[in-house]
Amino acid sequence: MAKNRVFVRHRDLAQFIVAAFLAKGMGAEEGQVVADALIWANLRGHDSHGVVRLPRYIDLIASGEMDPTARPDFAVDTPMRFVLDGQRCAGPVAMMRAILTASERAKTGGLCVGLVRNTTHTGAIGRYAEWIAERGFIALIAVAGIPLMAYHGARVRSVSTSPLAIGVPTGRGPLVLDMATSVAALGRLVQARAAGETIPGGWAIAEDGTPTTDPKAAAIPLPLGGPKGSGLSLMFEFMAGLLSGAPVLAPALGPQRRTRHTQNAFILALDVAGFRPPAEFAADADALIDVIKGLPLRDGFEEILLPGERGGLSQAARSDTGIPIAPSTWEALGRLARALEIALPPVIAGTK
Amino acid sequence: MAKNRVFVRHRDLAQFIVAAFLAKGMGAEEGQVVADALIWANLRGHDSHGVVRLPRYIDLIASGEMDPTARPDFAVDTPMRFVLDGQRCAGPVAMMRAILTASERAKTGGLCVGLVRNTTHTGAIGRYAEWIAERGFIALIAVAGIPLMAYHGARVRSVSTSPLAIGVPTGRGPLVLDMATSVAALGRLVQARAAGETIPGGWAIAEDGTPTTDPKAAAIPLPLGGPKGSGLSLMFEFMAGLLSGAPVLAPALGPQRRTRHTQNAFILALDVAGFRPPAEFAADADALIDVIKGLPLRDGFEEILLPGERGGLSQAARSDTGIPIAPSTWEALGRLARALEIALPPVIAGTK
Repeated sequence: MAKNRVFVRHRDLAQFIVAAFLAKGMGAEEGQVVADALIWANLRGHDSHGVVRLPRYIDLIASGEMDPTARPDFAVDTPMRFVLDGQRCAGPVAMMRAILTASERAKTGGLCVGLVRNTTHTGAIGRYAEWIAERGFIALIAVAGIPLMAYHGARVRSVSTSPLAIGVPTGRGPLVLDMATSVAALGRLVQARAAGETIPGGWAIAEDGTPTTDPKAAAIPLPLGGPKGSGLSLMFEFMAGLLSGAPVLAPALGPQRRTRHTQNAFILALDVAGFRPPAEFAADADALIDVIKGLPLRDGFEEILLPGERGGLSQAARSDTGIPIAPSTWEALGRLARALEIALPPVIAGTK
Repeated sequence: MAKNRVFVRHRDLAQFIVAAFLAKGMGAEEGQVVADALIWANLRGHDSHGVVRLPRYIDLIASGEMDPTARPDFAVDTPMRFVLDGQRCAGPVAMMRAILTASERAKTGGLCVGLVRNTTHTGAIGRYAEWIAERGFIALIAVAGIPLMAYHGARVRSVSTSPLAIGVPTGRGPLVLDMATSVAALGRLVQARAAGETIPGGWAIAEDGTPTTDPKAAAIPLPLGGPKGSGLSLMFEFMAGLLSGAPVLAPALGPQRRTRHTQNAFILALDVAGFRPPAEFAADADALIDVIKGLPLRDGFEEILLPGERGGLSQAARSDTGIPIAPSTWEALGRLARALEIALPPVIAGTK
């Protein structure tokens, strides 16, 4: 049994992910899109949204919640707004189509609001905001899905940990904020459980609704700032789910108790050039970055970090050293490889 | 000296506010718009954004930071996006013009992004989101201004406590989330100081950048969720300030040290009808409200509250009982009345 994490080159890991999806009937192009999304998260250090999700994605295909051959289709299609129905396709497949469409239409008309409905786990949404911002647009993206987090005051899973991402172009590349509406991401709770760390009060409640600092008992994440986090998450259900015609929370929490995994997304793309000359915006952006980076530090801090800056450093490092994979994840990938009769990617360091 | 709070009928208080602005050269229509914004906040229980601000607004006129006769003017003016330059007008005057414009254009084109620049304190932005949502549109509004809050890791005022408001129409009227990006609003710190309450750790730092729970020492609010709150606030400076061509933070924090009070706003209005039939959206909204209100409670909670629900209850009560005014505020209004030679509004209850 693996005791230590192993390191795998990100391109090899991507190839493994594509092979897994090919074995389940997905096209090579779509498999690559999903692999790119997972690998991006691993490179950025957001391991909870990386290859660790692959076995679950494969399970979603087995359960019929994800259709590997689905083709997303436009339900509303106008020059400045659209609804893309994912038809249960893999989240990144619908999201890449949607951000490409939103960016093209924002280029023509100055702005575009696109909704994605009936898709599966979108992965780390910072990647989509980054992609849009790299092309000179401002991006605001929110995702809503099944109940995972307690609404403020509730003892049960009642809203999603819906993330919000905002991306802006600067003279030095995109600046991207990507945040969950929970205090701590679900993945962080899983990490604490694996490491046996006591978690801070206010992060989570147990299955019975009581507050806990025991990582084994912590089951339901609590919202960021109480009513603020759960309020944001609720609003994203309106903006992504209800507006696209695909509500998730009411069917899941009401008498039907629908448990099917599904996600919806809200995407705003805004062309900077529709408001002011992009070069002037970029110069102001760089001046702002400089003053923020230069702020005097509080005791206990070593550096002021911009949104996404830590992820950028991780990406540079891991592109070189490879992606570290936890023992439990490596074992799960091994089981998956045997089941699908595909080869595990080569290990470049660590103990297997 | 006043020892207890007094109660004033909201229409009388509005008339007093209008009289104060008339005395400083503002037009009656604009004065009424500002009065309505302040009174709305008082009615909703957000007293930190109510009449307590009036003396400061009058000071802004004296210092030249607010121009009572300014006419907002469009710097960018297209069917689906605009920049309204406030020319230093009172915030609510520019904001009402902008939300009216954004709603009209969203009605025609399905969506509109409007920016407001060079205005003064906008007041509680929930009101503007509510106004847009009342007309059947989804609203997303963010405001950015001068440095008040510490950026995560910084020991000085470095970003604004920039609020975000999201409003959606439902079958039972608008649902509005209005939240600051700080843990606790500045007004809440002032309240704790007045009451001599110890504040929770993590709310604020002292002028020297050290953490404190002493309400007298607490000077600089801390961001909601650390990097999340200050990241959101920074992004709003990009989306409202930089995109409109009116950066605030870099000129304030850089070598120029510009201290002039100013605010900018980002407004998105989306017509529900551009995505799906509004009656279907409203039915889904009401079903969602029902399941959220019916969630099982955690110990220590008496009710699940929707965003803005507490404010709605306050509005109903205070429309009847009048608006309570703290002794220190009542004294300040008395000084203002004498200086401007206008009459204080009649007191309907309390000790004067």
